[in-house]
Amino acid sequence: MKLYNFFRSGTSHRLRIALNLKGLTTEYVAVDLRTEAHLKAEFKAINPQGLVPALALDDGRMLIQSPAIIEWLEERHPSPALLPADPEDRARVRALAAIVGCDIHPINNRRILETLRKQFGADETTVNAWCAAWIGDGFDAIEALLAADAKRGAFCFGDAPTLADVYLVPQVESARRFKVDLTRWPLIAAVDAACGQLEAFRRAAPAAQPDA
Amino acid sequence: MKLYNFFRSGTSHRLRIALNLKGLTTEYVAVDLRTEAHLKAEFKAINPQGLVPALALDDGRMLIQSPAIIEWLEERHPSPALLPADPEDRARVRALAAIVGCDIHPINNRRILETLRKQFGADETTVNAWCAAWIGDGFDAIEALLAADAKRGAFCFGDAPTLADVYLVPQVESARRFKVDLTRWPLIAAVDAACGQLEAFRRAAPAAQPDA
Repeated sequence: MKLYNFFRSGTSHRLRIALNLKGLTTEYVAVDLRTEAHLKAEFKAINPQGLVPALALDDGRMLIQSPAIIEWLEERHPSPALLPADPEDRARVRALAAIVGCDIHPINNRRILETLRKQFGADETTVNAWCAAWIGDGFDAIEALLAADAKRGAFCFGDAPTLADVYLVPQVESARRFKVDLTRWPLIAAVDAACGQLEAFRRAAPAAQPDA
Repeated sequence: MKLYNFFRSGTSHRLRIALNLKGLTTEYVAVDLRTEAHLKAEFKAINPQGLVPALALDDGRMLIQSPAIIEWLEERHPSPALLPADPEDRARVRALAAIVGCDIHPINNRRILETLRKQFGADETTVNAWCAAWIGDGFDAIEALLAADAKRGAFCFGDAPTLADVYLVPQVESARRFKVDLTRWPLIAAVDAACGQLEAFRRAAPAAQPDA
């Protein structure tokens, strides 16, 4: 498989973690968002949406959108499982992931921040405050949900990494980049630290990628 | 089951469609976003994220985040299926849904538009242009993906509604509200019209809700 991605993209980062947890290797194809390689015709032929990541299967089919690709991974490569067995537990894990995947990450995306800079004249302080606000709202919700889960171990759900951790860790990384003070969310910080002990997470980190 | 929702919320709308397609009935609990009922302590005790929709199960458990709730519906109430059987086809349908669920809807959310108005002084023309830009980007991608699918029938995938239609129709409704000209996307408009023939979609429409 060929993984079209960018070292610093949060959606690429989460997919790299999921691939590593599943023990799968891919050919790394860097798409440089800084030079807008993702908006060129060559990449749009791969993904008409012009976003990373995209995963080219060996039969030539192309998968796009990290939430769809990660669910596909879970279906085609079920072990180790990134979702629990019980449907209501699965809904809980998917909800934690969706708070990041729908309500934090897309709003702090490169294209949104570029629009704030170019059309609304936002400076870096304003951009960081924008990101911090949405990260804060989402992390407050996640922290409350983690605190309410009496059966929880070192990770977002139970004693092993799930989809929720796969989504959370890149968002914590991004929060650090936007200079967000993480001390407000001790449970999230502890989950991030637990994940940081695992090789699958360490190898997926932006700084560990060839295009970093 | 009790459905906490708001007639005009796109995420509530998509969940209502999915519930109707599955033939499930719920008790409708309106949460009025206009008076910020979703931000009050009473609703935050139901959903710490302070967003609709939320689905209270009969055993008292609470499900939040429409993508998680809809996947749960598919697992607990598999018939009629909203996802095809083949994993790569499922990935395609989920990707179409995620373009709306991650990259269009959350960016045009009420809380984002309120921030643009209050912190960036955006007027209604600017707000509509903001929404139109992200809807346009996403719809361009969806239109290209629909055009590339030679096996497609009247819906986003195949001959029956799937998750992709469940997400797309509320986004088309929202595009109309933001005065976006839909003639640029004839395939999307045709899918919307096909869905509009179905009772499950008609009964889920914002205008058909008790709080409208």
